[in-house]
Amino acid sequence: MDLLKQKVADDGVVIDEKILKVDGFLNHQIDAKLMHSVGQTFYEQFKEEGITKILTIEASGIAPAIMAALHFDVPCLFAKKAKPSTLTQDVYQASIHSFTKNTTSTVIVSNEFLNEDDRVLIIDDFLANGDASLGLNEIVEQAQAKTVGVGIVIEKSFQPGRERLEQAGLTVSSLCKVASLKGNEVTFVGDEA
Amino acid sequence: MDLLKQKVADDGVVIDEKILKVDGFLNHQIDAKLMHSVGQTFYEQFKEEGITKILTIEASGIAPAIMAALHFDVPCLFAKKAKPSTLTQDVYQASIHSFTKNTTSTVIVSNEFLNEDDRVLIIDDFLANGDASLGLNEIVEQAQAKTVGVGIVIEKSFQPGRERLEQAGLTVSSLCKVASLKGNEVTFVGDEA
Repeated sequence: MDLLKQKVADDGVVIDEKILKVDGFLNHQIDAKLMHSVGQTFYEQFKEEGITKILTIEASGIAPAIMAALHFDVPCLFAKKAKPSTLTQDVYQASIHSFTKNTTSTVIVSNEFLNEDDRVLIIDDFLANGDASLGLNEIVEQAQAKTVGVGIVIEKSFQPGRERLEQAGLTVSSLCKVASLKGNEVTFVGDEA
Repeated sequence: MDLLKQKVADDGVVIDEKILKVDGFLNHQIDAKLMHSVGQTFYEQFKEEGITKILTIEASGIAPAIMAALHFDVPCLFAKKAKPSTLTQDVYQASIHSFTKNTTSTVIVSNEFLNEDDRVLIIDDFLANGDASLGLNEIVEQAQAKTVGVGIVIEKSFQPGRERLEQAGLTVSSLCKVASLKGNEVTFVGDEA
C-alpha cells in the first residue's frame, strides 16, 4: 500500500532502532480514510477465504480491524486486556507480552463469540516479535476455530515476528514492511541500500 | 436509531438495575455495519458545525468514533488510559472514574494533536454518570479548543450523565436512550408504562 508507506515515511517518528511511533495516524490519532483503505486491502487479499470473524486486541488494533470487518461484512471481535465486571461468562485466554510497554498481560475473549465453525482473520497494527498474533491464534485454537490468516498494518521485518508466525503455520499479510530503523531513519523492505 | 434500539432490545443483557451488557455488538464483539450507521447518524446531526476532530477514549469508544471520523473526513483521536513508553511529548490529561470497573484512571492526549483551532465532537459508547465525557471536555479545554457536541451511542437516562453534561454547557446527542433496567428488562425512553 503506497499510501500507507507514504504516511509512515512522512509521519512516523523513529524513537530508537526498534521503536517506530505512528501516533499521528494509527496509535493515538487515527486516519479513518486510511484505515478504510487498509480494511479494503485486507478484504481483497482474503475475500475468497470464507472469513466469518475478524479478531484483534484492544486498543490500537480496533481501527484497522473494524474497517476490515466492514468490508467482509462479518463481526469484529476484540480481545480484552483485563476482566471487566460485566464479562462474566467463560472465556478463552492467552498471555501476551507487549514489546513497547514491556509488560505481560492476559487477554481474554468470551467463548460466546468464537466457535469451531469460525474462520478467523487476525488483524493487528504492528508485527514485531509476533506475541500478540500468536496469543490471538492460541485463543482461536482454544475455540477449535481456524485462523485463516494474519493481516498486519506495519511489519518490523527486522524482528522475528513473521518467522515465528510462519513457523506456527500462519499466513501473514503485511501492508507495509520496515526493513530497518537504523540511523534515525525508516528504511522499507525493497528500498535497502 | 431504530436499528440500534432493536439491537439493544435483542442482544443487550441486563446485569443489574444499573449495568447493561452489550458485548454482542459494541463492547467486545462489534457490529461494523451498525457502527458505520452510527457514525453516519452523528455526521447528519453535526455536519454543519465545522467539526475538525473526533475525540474518544480507548477502547470501546474507538469503533463508533472512527466511523464518525470516516463520515466527517477528519481525524479520530483516542485518549489513552496509561502512558506508554512511546508517548514522550507533553500531554493534556484528566482523571476519569469508570462506573463499570469502579476504577479511576488518568487519560491523556498528546498536545500535538489538539489545539485552539479545533472544533471537537466527543463520541463515547455509553453515557452513565458523564465522567468520561466531562474528562474529555476537560482535555479539550486544556487545549483551548471547543467541544461542539457529545455523541453517545447508548444513554442510560436514569443516571445523571446528561444532566451533568448539559450543566457544563455541552450539547448531548444520544442515539438510544434507556429509561430503566428494572425487572431485568430494558425499557426505552418514550416506551415507559
